[in-house]
Amino acid sequence: MAESFADRLKRAQRATESLVCVGLDPELARLPPDLAQAAEPLLAFNRRIIDATCGLAAAYKPQIAFYAALGAEAALLASIHYIRERAPQALVILDAKRNDIGNTAAAYATEAFDRYGADAVTVAPYMGTDSVLPFLERPDRGAILLCRTSNPGARDFQDLLVDGLPLYQRVAAHAAMHWNVHNNLMLVVGATYPREMAALRRAHPGLSFLVPGIGAQGGDLAATLDAGLDAEGAGLLINSSRAIIYAGGGSGAAIRAAAAELRAAINVHRAQRGRAIAAGAVRA
Amino acid sequence: MAESFADRLKRAQRATESLVCVGLDPELARLPPDLAQAAEPLLAFNRRIIDATCGLAAAYKPQIAFYAALGAEAALLASIHYIRERAPQALVILDAKRNDIGNTAAAYATEAFDRYGADAVTVAPYMGTDSVLPFLERPDRGAILLCRTSNPGARDFQDLLVDGLPLYQRVAAHAAMHWNVHNNLMLVVGATYPREMAALRRAHPGLSFLVPGIGAQGGDLAATLDAGLDAEGAGLLINSSRAIIYAGGGSGAAIRAAAAELRAAINVHRAQRGRAIAAGAVRA
Repeated sequence: MAESFADRLKRAQRATESLVCVGLDPELARLPPDLAQAAEPLLAFNRRIIDATCGLAAAYKPQIAFYAALGAEAALLASIHYIRERAPQALVILDAKRNDIGNTAAAYATEAFDRYGADAVTVAPYMGTDSVLPFLERPDRGAILLCRTSNPGARDFQDLLVDGLPLYQRVAAHAAMHWNVHNNLMLVVGATYPREMAALRRAHPGLSFLVPGIGAQGGDLAATLDAGLDAEGAGLLINSSRAIIYAGGGSGAAIRAAAAELRAAINVHRAQRGRAIAAGAVRA
Repeated sequence: MAESFADRLKRAQRATESLVCVGLDPELARLPPDLAQAAEPLLAFNRRIIDATCGLAAAYKPQIAFYAALGAEAALLASIHYIRERAPQALVILDAKRNDIGNTAAAYATEAFDRYGADAVTVAPYMGTDSVLPFLERPDRGAILLCRTSNPGARDFQDLLVDGLPLYQRVAAHAAMHWNVHNNLMLVVGATYPREMAALRRAHPGLSFLVPGIGAQGGDLAATLDAGLDAEGAGLLINSSRAIIYAGGGSGAAIRAAAAELRAAINVHRAQRGRAIAAGAVRA
């Protein structure tokens, strides 16, 4: 039987000793000056990022919108191939936030898993069961469901109370209860709302969260880790995009330093928390 | 000042005397046998559909997932160019159901409006204001927000009651009140739930609805029109994909007949309803 996606994620995190996910969100206007004239500037930039961070990241997360806007599907695919070559222990998450009815969702799953060979894809919950299940059919591939996102607009609908419980908690409960048959479901939980993350961790001790919002969006790392780490000191994949890829103007050394610093800060916090739990000072 | 998207839609509907939207959702496995060996089968099929239906449809709606699954972005773009050539009065709706945070949503808007030159794009509401506004910045282009979708899973979250009102009605109310500054917002309202559509029509007499779910999904046309037509006998764009494009095995004549039949059935109903309203037998 194929290894479940949840187990593959744990293995990637152990192999890299890292909870870091590097977001590959290259915007043409912000490319390092020395790459702006490259023949394939997005790919050249991604190769630099991957070279600089391989071994430090448990996962890479290309945001497909930045490639789609430019017709750069080939650069996206070549970047994913380059990750497989340089960082074979890391997972690839296609950040696409897809959602559609059954047969269309199946086509999107083909896009993510077959065309791009991604290990997981982000998915939006609004259309319900038949729009999500096609992404969860392959036990070794993951679907990462939008739950409580990191942006200001998250409040508009996700926080609405349904019988006293916010919608985002209803989404998580429904997904955990009905959709996670193959142990390959994760939730997107933004770092900018640690209270909401803590509530989700209490309700779902065994689910992993993909966490955007650290770095450029202002999420606090220590608060995020306190709120979201599971009993084993894992259960999180902390994404950073802009704060890593544009570090120091986008030089390889600055990118590597930014990724290493985030990884180390997370691991120091995990170790301290592990000692505090062992000493009985903190609940796991 | 540019004509608003709402006015462009009305003009397209008047020019074609049609509320029909033809969904361009070609699946390779279902292509007409005589096109299976074509050099560019998706494009060849779409050209046949467009040739057969031009003048009968107010809009065409390619579902991007079917192109993305195959790496057929070029066929999608060429199909849209062919619509402009053969059916210049029709609008093009890119069915993509995008949603993401602000700067990423802006990249998706670039994909839809600049790369593909679409007149409108479907958008999911879950992430709130900053994820939707980038699609509404151009008054002549539309954003069509998922509200009450046509699939079975729509019930899971869209019908949850928030202070006594279902979530889909909250989404519609929020969007109409805060986001429709340029009169370029529409709602996706499935034909499979006419009661829900009637509630939305009462609450939003001036908004247009994109209506999937007629045909293969089983939505009832008469019930949909009774529930959704506005006071002017318009306000709806009735999509049909599979029931038109695969009619009679996908021959041009059968496709044209299916589109003409749907258009006529809608227009007969509109005329009857118009007479009933004039006679005072039905409320507008």
